[in-house]
Amino acid sequence: MRARLYEIGIASPRHRIVDDPDAVAAFAAEVVGWPVVLKTVRGGYDGKGVWIVGSQSDPQIGRPFLADVPVLAEELVDHARELSAVISRSPGGDAVAYPVVESVQRDGICVEVVAPAPDLPGQLALEAQQIALRAAHALDVVGILAVEMFETRDGRLLVNELAMRPHNTAHWTIDGAVTSQFENHLRAVLDLPLGCPVAHDQWTVMVNVLGGNRPEPFTAYRHVLAQDGRLKVHWYGKSVRPGRKVGHVTISGNDLDDLQGRARHAAAYLRGDIDA
Amino acid sequence: MRARLYEIGIASPRHRIVDDPDAVAAFAAEVVGWPVVLKTVRGGYDGKGVWIVGSQSDPQIGRPFLADVPVLAEELVDHARELSAVISRSPGGDAVAYPVVESVQRDGICVEVVAPAPDLPGQLALEAQQIALRAAHALDVVGILAVEMFETRDGRLLVNELAMRPHNTAHWTIDGAVTSQFENHLRAVLDLPLGCPVAHDQWTVMVNVLGGNRPEPFTAYRHVLAQDGRLKVHWYGKSVRPGRKVGHVTISGNDLDDLQGRARHAAAYLRGDIDA
Repeated sequence: MRARLYEIGIASPRHRIVDDPDAVAAFAAEVVGWPVVLKTVRGGYDGKGVWIVGSQSDPQIGRPFLADVPVLAEELVDHARELSAVISRSPGGDAVAYPVVESVQRDGICVEVVAPAPDLPGQLALEAQQIALRAAHALDVVGILAVEMFETRDGRLLVNELAMRPHNTAHWTIDGAVTSQFENHLRAVLDLPLGCPVAHDQWTVMVNVLGGNRPEPFTAYRHVLAQDGRLKVHWYGKSVRPGRKVGHVTISGNDLDDLQGRARHAAAYLRGDIDA
Repeated sequence: MRARLYEIGIASPRHRIVDDPDAVAAFAAEVVGWPVVLKTVRGGYDGKGVWIVGSQSDPQIGRPFLADVPVLAEELVDHARELSAVISRSPGGDAVAYPVVESVQRDGICVEVVAPAPDLPGQLALEAQQIALRAAHALDVVGILAVEMFETRDGRLLVNELAMRPHNTAHWTIDGAVTSQFENHLRAVLDLPLGCPVAHDQWTVMVNVLGGNRPEPFTAYRHVLAQDGRLKVHWYGKSVRPGRKVGHVTISGNDLDDLQGRARHAAAYLRGDIDA
């Protein structure tokens, strides 16, 4: 994926395929310095399959090479935040672009999405959407493409990940946009005209519900619905495992601080971190 | 239903159960004058089971008595328009009220709904919601109750129909409200806390698609989606029969005239009344 992005002229973190810890050290010495990010090129998700290695003597440095999968070494990007640009593209090349969002990560897992990304300059938002559209065109994507990017402290965009499917960073569109990512994915796949990707409200906040301390979440579900009639709660019907995404909550309106407070409270309550 | 509304103090058109054409004439002479509206008290919908009779010699006057069903005679209300107040009520009596809408009727069929009802004075909107809440309380309704009313030219509300189910006059909430009538019906039936009934936009217009001249609507479906990315098209999967409700379209925004034009155009195109 990194190689293909390079071919089509889309910036991503500096990187090299490495075969062993010595190759990691060489990459650090010759290109990016320490620390180095190591990723297995298959099977990773939600922070799994990713290691940050501080030096050649870091005990983690051998870990990625235990699986029989190629390993990618990358620079650790000094980023201000992560953004996600999501588009839907038809077989004929028509596409619609959702507002660019901020994706808040913790331990490699997306915990919160704010649509649109606060204080993102219009020019950078446009650039992010154009990157997604160019990538979709070059890769001939049909349906949803989510492009996760680093916004660097010096105002550049570096592509971190591509996901060719309805994506967590666009779950806010189910309740918050005229046409959800799922509807626009189906419209694209069925080669129907695409629907308007505009948001209903000034701000939409989505907070993931991670598996936590509540074995039986139904009472908590009633509680958060009763507390906040504007809140939309989505359960995925998965068994609960610590850290696993088991659902999300969404809320829309005009006061971002207020919305973030309400969504975070509901997600924390559903997880069992708080009791009131 | 009329008797029960009278008991609980909710105004509806003057009425009497009648056994034959002579009783219709007596009701006209003693109470409301001509014309008289006749309804079979069961089995009516979309204008079926309703007759407007101009005099005792009107050839229609015997028709309602052919079925073995009681017949209701009513005054023909000189109304400015029809309104609908839709609420959802929980087993414990909690309820939420959707914005009061205008329901445009043609030949006894609801053809268009505008949410909220344009130029409806706030006091009258509140009164309409209170009528629906009182009726739901008196009848111990759980789930959606739609109350269809006449707004008379002298500014009174007369209840025409009650429907204890998700209702055509609230289909606009699927796309146009924070919580749809279907979600709030399920929340009520499941005794979950009810969701916010507020509209996303200043105006939402829903136009019913009636069965018409298109045997194969898929090409028309593509056409209207392509023409208007904000339009939401709902098909019910019914076989097409002239005049039958086979779907609806919804659109939301700030310019009511523009929205009505777009929704009516799409519905007429889907029906086959127009070709461009």
